[in-house]
Amino acid sequence: MEPNDFSAYLDSFTDREWQETAEDGENVRFALIGLGWWTSDKAMPAIDASTFCETTAVVSRSKEKAERVASEHESVEVGLSGEEFHDGVATDAYDAVYVCTPNARHLEFVESAAAHGKAILCEKPMEATLERAQRLADACDSADVMAMIAYRMHTEPAVRRARELVRSGAIGEPRFVHGSMSQSITGWGREQWRLDSDLVGDGASVTDLGIYPINTTRFVLDRDPIAAQSMMHSSHDYFEDVPDEVASFTIAFEDDVYATCTASQHSSMDSFLKIVGSEGTVTIDPAFHMASSLEVSIENTTVDVETPQVDQMEEEFDYFADCLLAGRRPDATPEHGLVDMRTLEAIYEAAERGETVSI
Amino acid sequence: MEPNDFSAYLDSFTDREWQETAEDGENVRFALIGLGWWTSDKAMPAIDASTFCETTAVVSRSKEKAERVASEHESVEVGLSGEEFHDGVATDAYDAVYVCTPNARHLEFVESAAAHGKAILCEKPMEATLERAQRLADACDSADVMAMIAYRMHTEPAVRRARELVRSGAIGEPRFVHGSMSQSITGWGREQWRLDSDLVGDGASVTDLGIYPINTTRFVLDRDPIAAQSMMHSSHDYFEDVPDEVASFTIAFEDDVYATCTASQHSSMDSFLKIVGSEGTVTIDPAFHMASSLEVSIENTTVDVETPQVDQMEEEFDYFADCLLAGRRPDATPEHGLVDMRTLEAIYEAAERGETVSI
Repeated sequence: MEPNDFSAYLDSFTDREWQETAEDGENVRFALIGLGWWTSDKAMPAIDASTFCETTAVVSRSKEKAERVASEHESVEVGLSGEEFHDGVATDAYDAVYVCTPNARHLEFVESAAAHGKAILCEKPMEATLERAQRLADACDSADVMAMIAYRMHTEPAVRRARELVRSGAIGEPRFVHGSMSQSITGWGREQWRLDSDLVGDGASVTDLGIYPINTTRFVLDRDPIAAQSMMHSSHDYFEDVPDEVASFTIAFEDDVYATCTASQHSSMDSFLKIVGSEGTVTIDPAFHMASSLEVSIENTTVDVETPQVDQMEEEFDYFADCLLAGRRPDATPEHGLVDMRTLEAIYEAAERGETVSI
Repeated sequence: MEPNDFSAYLDSFTDREWQETAEDGENVRFALIGLGWWTSDKAMPAIDASTFCETTAVVSRSKEKAERVASEHESVEVGLSGEEFHDGVATDAYDAVYVCTPNARHLEFVESAAAHGKAILCEKPMEATLERAQRLADACDSADVMAMIAYRMHTEPAVRRARELVRSGAIGEPRFVHGSMSQSITGWGREQWRLDSDLVGDGASVTDLGIYPINTTRFVLDRDPIAAQSMMHSSHDYFEDVPDEVASFTIAFEDDVYATCTASQHSSMDSFLKIVGSEGTVTIDPAFHMASSLEVSIENTTVDVETPQVDQMEEEFDYFADCLLAGRRPDATPEHGLVDMRTLEAIYEAAERGETVSI
């Protein structure tokens, strides 16, 4: 690459090469389902800043909360209770839904949204169990609605550039991967759905955080997982219902590429993804906590690429809307998400059995 | 820490806080056993530059090579064949031996050196198998000679400072570790002892490279391994006798601290060790390829400590000599090395069985 090519590369680093839709058309109108801090602090501002999206409906278990949030946001036309949403109230007010409830409540909202013929953006992991995730995928399929699982790393520029580098052979053949995501949620108190095995699924850390290195490795390597090993433990009393206060797991991907990963909801906040190939390395560090930075090292040359951070949620919402408006399938279909659900299940089973489990 | 304290910290970063011996006394005279590139390119220059050591004898399978190397180095008094060494020729010419032969030949030289009453610095891994490593430890023990396994990371300043930080509680409770060491040895041709299962032991990558993150984690965390999982594979034809062209392995340490590691003799050259605690992280990156750099991150503050690189081999030889001259036991006794040998055996067994193996 010539020096001026590299400058052009940096200039185009955050380009939306996926965008097909012209920017002067209609917006996709969203009903946001589940009004926790992620929706209010991350999703709503991202939608407000986005090119193709707006929030026109909000849905909460509490009608009162839904109406309060609706009254606080100019674009929002209606605040609905869950029951009203299921009953099809105000379906004219929105084109698509964003489902951001506790994991075990995704299915009911996706089933209703599919029945209403709405496009669906559903948070990951898809559901609390593989069986329920399969039902979720089936509901979207039967209703023939456009559906996407909300993997925000798919539209993070550092991740897309890492994927291009790997695809282009810049680091040779991928050999192994290290990935991690950790934070501490004990400051949020004992009463939170991520610590409730009825709502979260098999565990707290691998489902919610470990899914980031798993899915991002899949995406960057264009390979699927074939087997899993793991170790996990919980000792803090907040984690008495879940086995994975701290978890380590290794995924064998196609072509014997191993991704060795950690996830913890009770550790210092940290995240990274490092891919070591036969000829070089690509590292995303930090990776998963809403800001990402890329480092590429080939032979004895290391390049740190620092570019303006995008809002990952804004990119994700606009990508979803662009797919919907252009009438194409997103990368992260429910079928794509099911592979992660099978992987999560294998990881928990592997820890319990102390054995390698096929996926 | 006050700003001036931090400056003092940097100034003392590479201090040898372990040194007890005055610098004006007698040298420890070494017989170097095994005259491959590591001995000639790394060990001999380090000894030449060291404070307490000199090379006075060299030993090779080939008498001719031993005499040639002896003639090329002023301090070397005698070049011996292996047989001559075993027979006790010229034992007055050296005080200690450095054993740097293929793994499966350590035992014979350590047994002879112990019989001659010499102090012993033996390369890691101790031997090709746990059983032979145990015999090696027994030989040193029976002869009551001072013996140390050559873990050069124990005297790398970045590693010692990382250990101090962890001990002081700077990152809270250690939660999990990522470690890796990789390089590519195919450029050295098919005929090398690291690819010969008779000489290397159970494998090529975990024994020779994986031992770095294993042992350095032990050293920094002051904890011993209790169980292992692993996956490994070989596909390149150079690796047909060994199972681990690429390997991933996870070690459960005491207190459920997981170290998830990779090792490969056929990947891009890379190494790092990252320790994530409840309150922060300590990273050594690069770590194991003869240069080490420390990064500490606590809450939102990250400090990269870049200090002059020491010669890790010089530090190691002087530490060994200092222990010998001061009459104290080194940290890396043969008993210490045996824990790694048991860990290596567990890792290979775990890969074969597809199960978690206790150590």
